[in-house]
Amino acid sequence: MSKLLSRRDLSFLLYDWLQVERLITRPRYAQHDRTTFDAVLETAEKIATDLFAPHNRMSDLNEPHFDGTRVTLIPDVKRALDAFNAAGLVAAGQDEAHGGMQLPAVIDKALMAYFMSANCATAAYPFLTIGNANLLLAHGSEDQILKFVRPMLEGRFFGTMCLSEPQAGSSLSDITTRAEPQADGTYRLYGTKMWISAGEHELSENIIHLVLARTPNAPLGVKGISLFIVPKFLVNTDGSLGERNDVVLAGLNHKMGYRGTTNCLLSFGEGVHQPDGHGGAVGYLIGEQHRGLGYMFHMMNEARIGVGLGATMLGYTGYLHALDYALQRPQGRHPQNKDPASPQIPIIEHADVRRMLLAQKSYVEGALALNLYCAMLVDEERTAPTPELRQDATDLLDILTPIAKGWPSQWCLEANSLAIQVLGGYGYTRDFPVEQFYRDNRLNAIHEGTHGIQALDLLGRKVVLNDSRAYLLLVDRIRASVQAARQTDQADLHEYASLLEGMLARLSATTKALWSAGNLNVTLANASTYLEAFGHVVIAWIWLSQATVIADQQHGTSSAEAKAAPDFASGKLYACRYFFRVELPKVRVMLDLLTSLDTTALDMRAQWF
Amino acid sequence: MSKLLSRRDLSFLLYDWLQVERLITRPRYAQHDRTTFDAVLETAEKIATDLFAPHNRMSDLNEPHFDGTRVTLIPDVKRALDAFNAAGLVAAGQDEAHGGMQLPAVIDKALMAYFMSANCATAAYPFLTIGNANLLLAHGSEDQILKFVRPMLEGRFFGTMCLSEPQAGSSLSDITTRAEPQADGTYRLYGTKMWISAGEHELSENIIHLVLARTPNAPLGVKGISLFIVPKFLVNTDGSLGERNDVVLAGLNHKMGYRGTTNCLLSFGEGVHQPDGHGGAVGYLIGEQHRGLGYMFHMMNEARIGVGLGATMLGYTGYLHALDYALQRPQGRHPQNKDPASPQIPIIEHADVRRMLLAQKSYVEGALALNLYCAMLVDEERTAPTPELRQDATDLLDILTPIAKGWPSQWCLEANSLAIQVLGGYGYTRDFPVEQFYRDNRLNAIHEGTHGIQALDLLGRKVVLNDSRAYLLLVDRIRASVQAARQTDQADLHEYASLLEGMLARLSATTKALWSAGNLNVTLANASTYLEAFGHVVIAWIWLSQATVIADQQHGTSSAEAKAAPDFASGKLYACRYFFRVELPKVRVMLDLLTSLDTTALDMRAQWF
Repeated sequence: MSKLLSRRDLSFLLYDWLQVERLITRPRYAQHDRTTFDAVLETAEKIATDLFAPHNRMSDLNEPHFDGTRVTLIPDVKRALDAFNAAGLVAAGQDEAHGGMQLPAVIDKALMAYFMSANCATAAYPFLTIGNANLLLAHGSEDQILKFVRPMLEGRFFGTMCLSEPQAGSSLSDITTRAEPQADGTYRLYGTKMWISAGEHELSENIIHLVLARTPNAPLGVKGISLFIVPKFLVNTDGSLGERNDVVLAGLNHKMGYRGTTNCLLSFGEGVHQPDGHGGAVGYLIGEQHRGLGYMFHMMNEARIGVGLGATMLGYTGYLHALDYALQRPQGRHPQNKDPASPQIPIIEHADVRRMLLAQKSYVEGALALNLYCAMLVDEERTAPTPELRQDATDLLDILTPIAKGWPSQWCLEANSLAIQVLGGYGYTRDFPVEQFYRDNRLNAIHEGTHGIQALDLLGRKVVLNDSRAYLLLVDRIRASVQAARQTDQADLHEYASLLEGMLARLSATTKALWSAGNLNVTLANASTYLEAFGHVVIAWIWLSQATVIADQQHGTSSAEAKAAPDFASGKLYACRYFFRVELPKVRVMLDLLTSLDTTALDMRAQWF
Repeated sequence: MSKLLSRRDLSFLLYDWLQVERLITRPRYAQHDRTTFDAVLETAEKIATDLFAPHNRMSDLNEPHFDGTRVTLIPDVKRALDAFNAAGLVAAGQDEAHGGMQLPAVIDKALMAYFMSANCATAAYPFLTIGNANLLLAHGSEDQILKFVRPMLEGRFFGTMCLSEPQAGSSLSDITTRAEPQADGTYRLYGTKMWISAGEHELSENIIHLVLARTPNAPLGVKGISLFIVPKFLVNTDGSLGERNDVVLAGLNHKMGYRGTTNCLLSFGEGVHQPDGHGGAVGYLIGEQHRGLGYMFHMMNEARIGVGLGATMLGYTGYLHALDYALQRPQGRHPQNKDPASPQIPIIEHADVRRMLLAQKSYVEGALALNLYCAMLVDEERTAPTPELRQDATDLLDILTPIAKGWPSQWCLEANSLAIQVLGGYGYTRDFPVEQFYRDNRLNAIHEGTHGIQALDLLGRKVVLNDSRAYLLLVDRIRASVQAARQTDQADLHEYASLLEGMLARLSATTKALWSAGNLNVTLANASTYLEAFGHVVIAWIWLSQATVIADQQHGTSSAEAKAAPDFASGKLYACRYFFRVELPKVRVMLDLLTSLDTTALDMRAQWF
């Protein structure tokens, strides 16, 4: 059994639940079929298993080292990424015209899931490169695409995103990096960027930084931010590398986890490589001035869903490790068995261990399903037959992004904590990988917009935007799933359908109450709780929907293959049951708090702490 | 401001809330007064600040190293412990007859809190030594006390507890270490012990292991376990050290946190130091054969409360670090402020940051209060004027032990996670200590009985023992606090009193429903949820009781000093309000699940995962 990802679960989610084979009828994906999808997933699983997973611990124990000039990583990282690139996986989702495989986004994400599970730190390099390339494909000029994107898709260049600065993490409005226009149409950048993942290394020929900066006399705040390409090495017209650009590593951050990904403080325009003193990092404006943050959100939104998938996969692999351990480790006896001469039982025989495994299963399989659903929305956005359907997909993706990022960051981390607990003392040692997953996963509620930022994005913006169009659309989708569950022959699912319907109505009433507060501070005071309640409702929907497909399969309307796996079906139904009985009820308490417009945290004063 | 522990809070808890000065009227503590209490607390704070805290990170980065023969620790550990011993703190709570200061247990725990906050890994050495000494003082012979306890109380010997074995962690029934009686009345031990904290080092002249083992023909299971003293070096009649005993370090465990405490696999009786091949670790039976586990629980119960205090203090120091950061770090603006030219505000001005700080405050101050309350029960058990009152204290301590251990292990870890979140990216780096606190604290739900074991102890044993005597006593205490809150002039507290009263009634009904299930497996299937619900009720009680004292002080019945600190009072009342509005309502959902006798985890089958 793979401990990266259950292939059986993935197949169920892709083919039975999301029915991705529908996509083959669309012109963009017409050259594909389930065989090509499965082939690329198998390739991904093999490379992830053979080359990414084996150095996951080693790169944690030997984090990147900066001697003041060069960064050194263990060689296994480059070996793994070379194989990833040789298999063409960096361009798996790209147009054939750009040398890509033109696979659906949902397949692309599924294959990335294997790498995030096997080694999230090494997977971060291509993950950022793909996001960078996608931004440039959407907003860059033809020349920029040719010069910078093509080599990225070939795996020769890697990419980054440079937003934060030491004095401006969550508050992008306050960035101060300057971009000064030059006579030749290029810019020179000066400033310092913080928390730049993959900001320096020698894994690729070049590094393409996407940098937020201000042009002279730009308006203050986010409306004065522009976006620039700043390559580590300048690129000549013929594509060959030119001189070293004026961007240097000022220091590496030493983290609790995710250690294999270099995380950098980068200095732009310090003149380090310009002995004549004429510093300034050469940069190229993307699109129009002052619209940089909007472009960056192209990459940021993708990165947020990617972070959610990464959090999910850390939880997922932790769960599979805990399950494996629980099936094998003998310890203790059933409560009613007082005979010390009887053999010890595998710990999975203890109800409390099964509870911890069920919780993990409900978190990680629920989160993976949501993340793949979001990826499928990218495909719908791109290829759905009508503009209306494409707009629907955009809106749904928009409102689900903070959930797809925030929920796994919280609950799949909890899954990792439970995995440690299942392994007990062993789980707390570095002899087993679960403690690393836990450390790695703790980052995900912080980067690409903290939990609190996601909460403000959801409650302060997404649910009310365009007269709540996205919210109402999501409600329709959830209601459709409720109806579908009611049409199964399973009384359990009817019960869950009613629970979900009731909770959804309460969520809507709460949203309305929050926005009727008449005071923005009051509306947003418990935004994090809103995000968490909303997330649980969404995952309950995802579980009900999965269970409905299982029920329909069991009822006989589906393939023999599906019916041949009653254990799998029971597992899905029990995880759904766990979520509805143990998890969803927690939402009630959160909505009560929100509806009361509680101002405890808002009213608390700094000097009272 | 100390970042170890708020002295203001500690003074409030000791003198205003617990009124420890009452103890001075008891003969055992008659030589003390508030001045001596404060003096020893100041000494503790000073040594903890000057010698323990400074090497906390260093000992994390340079964990103990075993070269196959010797264990090496950074020298700072010994320097700190020498100062601790020189100040006589290891015997702070011991009888004057044994060279101790004869301080109340509640003061002893308060001073230990400083060390656990400053450096939990270094503090573990004396913490285990004290527990070991206390066990021997209660159950050892005079000769054993003279030989082994005296040097421990002088800080010359350190102690351990050796329960687990590689094949028997939570299941002590399955230990196999043998103890063979010798003609001279001693024993020879053979076996392997796992997870032994402080099991090997060169910090002290000798290490006194307390070892669970089986004598020949002992009954199977826990009723056949005896307890032995196994010193690292034999001790001659005159107290001088004799030959090296046959107990050796087989390997160190490499942990996610708590790295400064050696954690050992120990081999007994392998003949390593006996070149003639006549191996066997010399051991001395404590008390009677087959009663070893009962004796060990003397130390274990103390260790469990100690673990709870350790978890609390990691959360507490993390909270103080997060608070300090939040007061200083500028980032962003209020939601309604759209002017990017206005200065950034300290992040404590954001409601979500205050929410995270309030949550931490409510967890860590609540947990510290509970732990000190438990320590006060030890004093009552020892010195209360009547046998009935002493028995009450024993019973209350008995039922509160799984809470005092389990609740901080869960919620003060959550506090550490929130502290990381407050610091954002910085919190995830090793430049700040909060990530270490988070890693260190993750151990506490595992050692000295896992969370699941605490849950079984509470629901399966403590709440029903002796016709629920302890449970009913606790209910009486909580009801008394409810009445006291109703007699304040604060409407808020009246409201919380009713909430707590209602929840307590529901907890009792749930306990009854669980024990009426007629099937032990069903009763215990969700024991962990029961532990968590029970814990939240207890902490709500602790908060209501603190708030009542504050309210009484504000009403004018108390000292001018207390009334002079309105900020402190507001902080306490808001933390109480936070707990009642945000935390206590979570119990409803847990009790619903328990009352429904949910069997989802129980019914789940291994092959369905």
